[in-house]
Amino acid sequence: MAIKNSINVGIIGFGTVGTGTARILIENADIIRRRLGAPVVLKKISDLDVKRDRGLKLTGVQLTTKAQEIFIDPEIDVVVELIGGYKPAKDFILEAIKNKKHVVTANKALLAVHGEEIYAAAEQAGVTVGFEASVAGGIPILAAVKNGLAANNIKSIYGIVNGTCNYILTLMTNEGRKFDEVLKEAQAKGYAEADPTFDIEGIDSAHKLAVLAMLAYGTPVKFDDIHTEGISKITPLDIDFAKDLGYKIKLLAITKMVDGEIEARVHPTMLPEEYPIASVDGVFNALSIVGDAVGSTMFYGRGAGDMPTGSAVVSDIIDIGRDILAGCTDRTPVTAFRERRPLKIRKMEDITSCYYLRFSAIDKPGVLSRITGVLGKNNISISSMIQKGRKVDEAVPIVMMTHDAIERDVRKALDEINKMDCVAGATIVIRVEEGKQG
Amino acid sequence: MAIKNSINVGIIGFGTVGTGTARILIENADIIRRRLGAPVVLKKISDLDVKRDRGLKLTGVQLTTKAQEIFIDPEIDVVVELIGGYKPAKDFILEAIKNKKHVVTANKALLAVHGEEIYAAAEQAGVTVGFEASVAGGIPILAAVKNGLAANNIKSIYGIVNGTCNYILTLMTNEGRKFDEVLKEAQAKGYAEADPTFDIEGIDSAHKLAVLAMLAYGTPVKFDDIHTEGISKITPLDIDFAKDLGYKIKLLAITKMVDGEIEARVHPTMLPEEYPIASVDGVFNALSIVGDAVGSTMFYGRGAGDMPTGSAVVSDIIDIGRDILAGCTDRTPVTAFRERRPLKIRKMEDITSCYYLRFSAIDKPGVLSRITGVLGKNNISISSMIQKGRKVDEAVPIVMMTHDAIERDVRKALDEINKMDCVAGATIVIRVEEGKQG
Repeated sequence: MAIKNSINVGIIGFGTVGTGTARILIENADIIRRRLGAPVVLKKISDLDVKRDRGLKLTGVQLTTKAQEIFIDPEIDVVVELIGGYKPAKDFILEAIKNKKHVVTANKALLAVHGEEIYAAAEQAGVTVGFEASVAGGIPILAAVKNGLAANNIKSIYGIVNGTCNYILTLMTNEGRKFDEVLKEAQAKGYAEADPTFDIEGIDSAHKLAVLAMLAYGTPVKFDDIHTEGISKITPLDIDFAKDLGYKIKLLAITKMVDGEIEARVHPTMLPEEYPIASVDGVFNALSIVGDAVGSTMFYGRGAGDMPTGSAVVSDIIDIGRDILAGCTDRTPVTAFRERRPLKIRKMEDITSCYYLRFSAIDKPGVLSRITGVLGKNNISISSMIQKGRKVDEAVPIVMMTHDAIERDVRKALDEINKMDCVAGATIVIRVEEGKQG
Repeated sequence: MAIKNSINVGIIGFGTVGTGTARILIENADIIRRRLGAPVVLKKISDLDVKRDRGLKLTGVQLTTKAQEIFIDPEIDVVVELIGGYKPAKDFILEAIKNKKHVVTANKALLAVHGEEIYAAAEQAGVTVGFEASVAGGIPILAAVKNGLAANNIKSIYGIVNGTCNYILTLMTNEGRKFDEVLKEAQAKGYAEADPTFDIEGIDSAHKLAVLAMLAYGTPVKFDDIHTEGISKITPLDIDFAKDLGYKIKLLAITKMVDGEIEARVHPTMLPEEYPIASVDGVFNALSIVGDAVGSTMFYGRGAGDMPTGSAVVSDIIDIGRDILAGCTDRTPVTAFRERRPLKIRKMEDITSCYYLRFSAIDKPGVLSRITGVLGKNNISISSMIQKGRKVDEAVPIVMMTHDAIERDVRKALDEINKMDCVAGATIVIRVEEGKQG
């Protein structure tokens, strides 16, 4: 085999991340070559729109509207898929793999749903799929799970992996404003999309969690396995109660190994405000990983944007380039494990957590004892309670913090409580993370 | 070449980190094998004391008092040096390399002084030297610099890399106590050594910085190149002034690329309290890395201890194991760069920083104008000033915060000011980090 003297790259998708990736490959060519020992050459970029000026010096880069011109080009070593979505991204990636191209992608939605098929195809073809950019943008978190913490049994991962949600919650917390209002501002500033559903309903976070949990535990974890709740029901009232109790509310992607089963869930979570991850504000992402040897770690940085995400894409290209130049194939498995085991994903009803419960109860004698009675008979014990304001015969908020309880018991108790005539409206439930972080 | 079906390891040094490393190799053997695809077998451990019970099940592990039995054993693939210090650690490592063993070490002191010789020997022999454990314990920070952020020109690294100092400063800050008293408590609790010089004088931090800066910039950086100040002169008074001004004092290891030159320095630093790294307390370590593409990142975790440091040692063993099993040599250069360039290390007198200056000045008319006059003629301008308490004709503390100034100018001005008859005692100088963190 001829010795390679360059790593040739083609990019499918010349949008935000495609432009950032191209910019890094062009403007940081010197540092990349010095680290790798050979130049990374951006040969081709495909996009439906090749006319728009992206402000880049594209000397020597071929632009095309046909993606297949990239994945069939015999000179291209690495195909970078940055169009996102399921179709035609999946076909492009599988075609590239068939043509023995290494693939780099930032497409968490695709990996969360069709990852197993893609990983298997890559393994069979003897090529690598790099997807560092699919989770938490520029933070090298997948590398940490695959390599840096490889000596550890991962006990848990808690991640703030959606900048839009964290930005909205930060503004709601710091300025006491309502969700709808802050969302509109985030949309105006470009921090939230016109259709924000994927972000605010936790779907994007769940896509990322599927990828992370698969790498952490060496077992397939699919988007459908993940319990997903968003932040649209969080109110300033709950944020205020959280503050009073010493907590902050964050949208967390959580995965844990509990008694040989995996928990994987996305929901608003109350975190003790002294936890490092609780102070991560604005559009920043952060992940706390607890390993049995290393203890508690945290990784923090920008989770989105052209250049941070491009940084992760190019780090994958360099990693693949090192394999190619050293003539080694299949050095690290795409899934981080040589021996994977199908592990059970624990049903949401079976998880154990502490809970914040906010009841809207009519303020009259006997109400508290009826509520606590139902909780008690469902094995839910209370660690603290707050009642603010008194308005006889009107609904007032009563907050109870529970000790560890089983989700199924909580749901059963609330079904009964929510039907009581002295309870006005559905009880608000926010899970509370009280576990030691290493 | 026969296909390897295990990675065989020998450990030199059965102290704290050696024990942690052995414990992980034994107790986490299953997860390591599943990730790597072959078992990592701990074959031998050498130590002067092989009698003491370390609480490990050492079935099949040979104990010896002779280190050479490890580095000459033809069955051993990876030699782990964990005795620390310069002699005989350096000889053991060079002998291991000569015998074509890959080496893993946590020995920052050795690498900061003799690193270049060791890297060159390894490169010539075609073996790897892994030293993730030498900086910030379990935090995979060297991997981040070598791989995860490889697409970036590193603009700066700010690190809290000595847990002893951070523990002492945290107690001084939170409890208003004096250095000597807190040091004694830290010694009693085992967080500081009987001879704490290496830690409290910043020497250990400078050793780690030498390793980090070399990897970040692809140029040799030696311990002697690094300006090093410790924390023994920090007083509760300065911590209080810092608080009033919105800062926290941390011992930072700092390296930056400025106009094509490298700054590398260790000293107490005032950080705006809203910086993520400013809130890192106790024995924890954290490093903020700013890259031109990724922006600001932070990595946080335990920087010392048997298991966290062992986690880093074993991650290096797994990394080397992946190379061995894939049959690839020289995949990633030991120094992270294929093409290194000798870059100038900026002299401390030439750096630019903001400064906190605390004068002990006799409180009488004209003193302020004399001090500010000397500062002004040395190109130092003041951004704010605090004077607390008034005692006519006695020395009172006057604090001035400067705009960006050159160290040489500050030293010259203070030489003159400290000689004034209205100034009682040497002026306290603490550098202030005001740069945007990405």
